[in-house]
Amino acid sequence: MIGIEGIPMIEEGDDLVSIILNAAHESEVELLEGDILCIAQKIISKSEGMLRDLASINPSREATKLAENTKKDPRMVQLILDESSEILRSKENVIIARHKLGIVGAHAGIDQSNIDHRDGEKALLLPKDPDLSAKKIRAELQRKSGVAEIGVVVTDSHNRPWRMGTIGVAIGSSGVKVLDDRVGGADIFDRKLNATLINNADAVANAATLVMGETIEQIPVVIVRGLNPEKMLTNDPGENGTLINRPLDQDMFR
Amino acid sequence: MIGIEGIPMIEEGDDLVSIILNAAHESEVELLEGDILCIAQKIISKSEGMLRDLASINPSREATKLAENTKKDPRMVQLILDESSEILRSKENVIIARHKLGIVGAHAGIDQSNIDHRDGEKALLLPKDPDLSAKKIRAELQRKSGVAEIGVVVTDSHNRPWRMGTIGVAIGSSGVKVLDDRVGGADIFDRKLNATLINNADAVANAATLVMGETIEQIPVVIVRGLNPEKMLTNDPGENGTLINRPLDQDMFR
Repeated sequence: MIGIEGIPMIEEGDDLVSIILNAAHESEVELLEGDILCIAQKIISKSEGMLRDLASINPSREATKLAENTKKDPRMVQLILDESSEILRSKENVIIARHKLGIVGAHAGIDQSNIDHRDGEKALLLPKDPDLSAKKIRAELQRKSGVAEIGVVVTDSHNRPWRMGTIGVAIGSSGVKVLDDRVGGADIFDRKLNATLINNADAVANAATLVMGETIEQIPVVIVRGLNPEKMLTNDPGENGTLINRPLDQDMFR
Repeated sequence: MIGIEGIPMIEEGDDLVSIILNAAHESEVELLEGDILCIAQKIISKSEGMLRDLASINPSREATKLAENTKKDPRMVQLILDESSEILRSKENVIIARHKLGIVGAHAGIDQSNIDHRDGEKALLLPKDPDLSAKKIRAELQRKSGVAEIGVVVTDSHNRPWRMGTIGVAIGSSGVKVLDDRVGGADIFDRKLNATLINNADAVANAATLVMGETIEQIPVVIVRGLNPEKMLTNDPGENGTLINRPLDQDMFR
């Protein structure tokens, strides 16, 4: 795992791929065949202009009520409602929502940390389509670096219902075999495996957070190198982050 | 991440630490200061004699009923009930339980894969006290290898309610700073962080699964090397896997 240092604060419209490749080059890191680039959702969202000015938000009655119950800023709650298809649970300071993208997590992935609030309080939404972001970034990385066999994972950090502490997860990807399906395979005693589906993309994202950090480290891009490319990489455009969202009819915790 | 190859099938009573150090030595891998050893729960459970013979289980009425509803083997269901303090959800082929250790997951962590069933069907329970197992293994590793600053993580693979595919998690540990608490710290714009608690132990466990595999790979031990020891390691005996279990009064999805 190689953290790319020297990436500046990202602004709307920034050319992320050039910035990443320049920063890597400055650190004498070159992209190699088989690499998986993990990129923090935050810098993608910023470059895509997903920052919202809270002063411009007019909370609805529904948002105001949920804000009262959760003691959150009604404008933040309005953004969460706008970004979500379903609120699963809420309590003081916590709203668990299903994002319109299908991703379940706290506050529909909306975040206020590591954002410049000096000219008014702001909030950062998830990228509009993280799989599409990953796809574009991957194509651009391939074009600019000349390296063909790479994967891109858009990372975020999630809480989980029964375990303390956030972990890194993949909310979008391109070029990565997201789920390793062993169902129907056999174990070492040749017994049929009933239910072994391994989430490679989340594992890569989570590994990357060990280097990325989440607060003041300012390492929003990590190269994960040395994994088996046959196991991890693919050119199948259908392999992307949406495969990770558990279908509603399998959700036991709505 | 360095997978230790050549570890044989583990039997009850086996000296795990000697086996691991021998296998590492055969592969010309030596333990270094700062290493974190991830060890699959399965080989610890086997060495501790946690294999149960299903023929010896007499399912209760409760187990029989839950087995009917879930179409599972009543003897397996009896084991799950015996190991659990609470059944959270169940449906065909799935029982989500809170293990008596506090860990929430499918089937109370009981597993039937990669087990020798030739003289009767068996099931493998979690280690009795995974933190204690980790503590003993760490002390023994320190003693036998002469390396002082190491961590041990007992890994398992978990499903999650809203995401497909299993990820590696830590169900026990010793010597590792399990949760990195940034709450009350500041971000790069000096804004106070409200809720940033990072689960380092799960990240290490999940990273290790990229090398470990979960079915036929037979790499039950992975060394994670090169992480910042000040951030990741500790001698505090209070730092262990139980810190990961979310307290019942914070559980929004019972």
